[in-house]
Amino acid sequence: MIKKIAVTGGVHGNELTGAYVVKKWEPPKFSDIEVTKILANPKAFKACRRYIDYDLNRSFHKEALNLDSHIYEYERAKVLNGRLKSFDFLIDLHTTTANLGATIVLSSTDEISTAVAKSAAVKSGAKIIRWLSNEEGAFINSVTDHSVTIEVGPVCQGVLDPTIYQRSLDVLNAVLETIESKNFVNSGPVECYEIFGYVDYPRDVHGELEGMIHPELIGRDFSPIEKGEEIFLGFDSKSIRYDGDRAYALFINEAAYYEKSIAFCLARKITI
Amino acid sequence: MIKKIAVTGGVHGNELTGAYVVKKWEPPKFSDIEVTKILANPKAFKACRRYIDYDLNRSFHKEALNLDSHIYEYERAKVLNGRLKSFDFLIDLHTTTANLGATIVLSSTDEISTAVAKSAAVKSGAKIIRWLSNEEGAFINSVTDHSVTIEVGPVCQGVLDPTIYQRSLDVLNAVLETIESKNFVNSGPVECYEIFGYVDYPRDVHGELEGMIHPELIGRDFSPIEKGEEIFLGFDSKSIRYDGDRAYALFINEAAYYEKSIAFCLARKITI
Repeated sequence: MIKKIAVTGGVHGNELTGAYVVKKWEPPKFSDIEVTKILANPKAFKACRRYIDYDLNRSFHKEALNLDSHIYEYERAKVLNGRLKSFDFLIDLHTTTANLGATIVLSSTDEISTAVAKSAAVKSGAKIIRWLSNEEGAFINSVTDHSVTIEVGPVCQGVLDPTIYQRSLDVLNAVLETIESKNFVNSGPVECYEIFGYVDYPRDVHGELEGMIHPELIGRDFSPIEKGEEIFLGFDSKSIRYDGDRAYALFINEAAYYEKSIAFCLARKITI
Repeated sequence: MIKKIAVTGGVHGNELTGAYVVKKWEPPKFSDIEVTKILANPKAFKACRRYIDYDLNRSFHKEALNLDSHIYEYERAKVLNGRLKSFDFLIDLHTTTANLGATIVLSSTDEISTAVAKSAAVKSGAKIIRWLSNEEGAFINSVTDHSVTIEVGPVCQGVLDPTIYQRSLDVLNAVLETIESKNFVNSGPVECYEIFGYVDYPRDVHGELEGMIHPELIGRDFSPIEKGEEIFLGFDSKSIRYDGDRAYALFINEAAYYEKSIAFCLARKITI
């Protein structure tokens, strides 16, 4: 039984939508479910930066949670871990600069999380992404047994957009209503994009960019890309073509992923 | 005679377009003009932040240039001031998250700068903005006698967009060709948007936002707004209406201006 739900926003301090949702939005009153809002990284929010020292959403792995650290986000992860572990379900709010639309991201194959995501996706028209592996370190979602991430775009870092704000609330309300209705376990098969790889920008030996996303690829999240398609435009005006197997491109040109060496993610379409 | 031109990019470290133009673009070779590229704030560029301690483009006033300071950008301004004062003309490259298109910004009424801007605007299809007063502190443009700023949007901070990159180069090349042609002094009257005021977001007593740009206003830079038009949407879903005289809205929802208490600028249309 899901009794206690946490809604976190501002895990990335310059994603203003989630931060203002937890500050300003009034959760619905449910008879037997308690909804708690948490501004996850107040220091980064105040500075309007993604993070102070390190990505908080990669700071919930064992080492970060157990060792004393000079990294602000590692300490904040310990605090959040303590507060969140008594919750049954976590809804974490994010935005992206990519043209993703409204999505629900699953970071595990947990059955309850999956069932909630499916039902809420159907209700709200959001797409489902599954992003399981994460080499850098665990998401905040790893703290509770069940969780979904709501990721909506495109919107710039440090900016509020009323359409993106409303779309985030629509999906959030759909997730809450799904949990409250309790009949989410039997939804039928739903389409899901499972991330399995990454493509980095063209770079020189010093790691500096040698090109940008190609005009033909920009904004085309969830479209299939085929071998031979133009994916980057070099600063020398030459195109660079895709050399992999057919896949779906997600998070194309996400600002925060430049430093993670991700120009876009590769996904396969599955049914869950 | 204009002999030495400086092209600065990355005055704001997370405006990647200008930074990569000065890194990757090869200036045209002119027989009697020397073009020098300068990455203005390498430390902020490396951190992918607008600035480290303070906005560099508000750090060229007397106090910043004369007093020793703990503010990184004040020190950097001293260095740039020393390097730039031997130049005849400065072209400073910027981007905005607002839907501004390609613009040339004048920060003085200097005749030569104005004549160059007019001719280059006609050549490239860019609009001209004049932004004279600046309470916070002087722009980098104050270092040389003649200058223009190229400001193109919309593009997120921390992101390269090939269309914005190309548009910036188009305007930059138009400015350089104008200067090289030397016959820019006699261009006829050209339309210009002169900024005369600012409108801040609705805020509570602690300065925190109580609303966002209204969906009806977003993206409508250079459109006239009239008294009574909806300009903000409160988090309580109530609209807030414009209470001033007819004006043109510029820099609507620019990310970097949230902290400057500017939701958008008000401009009048003049002929120069």
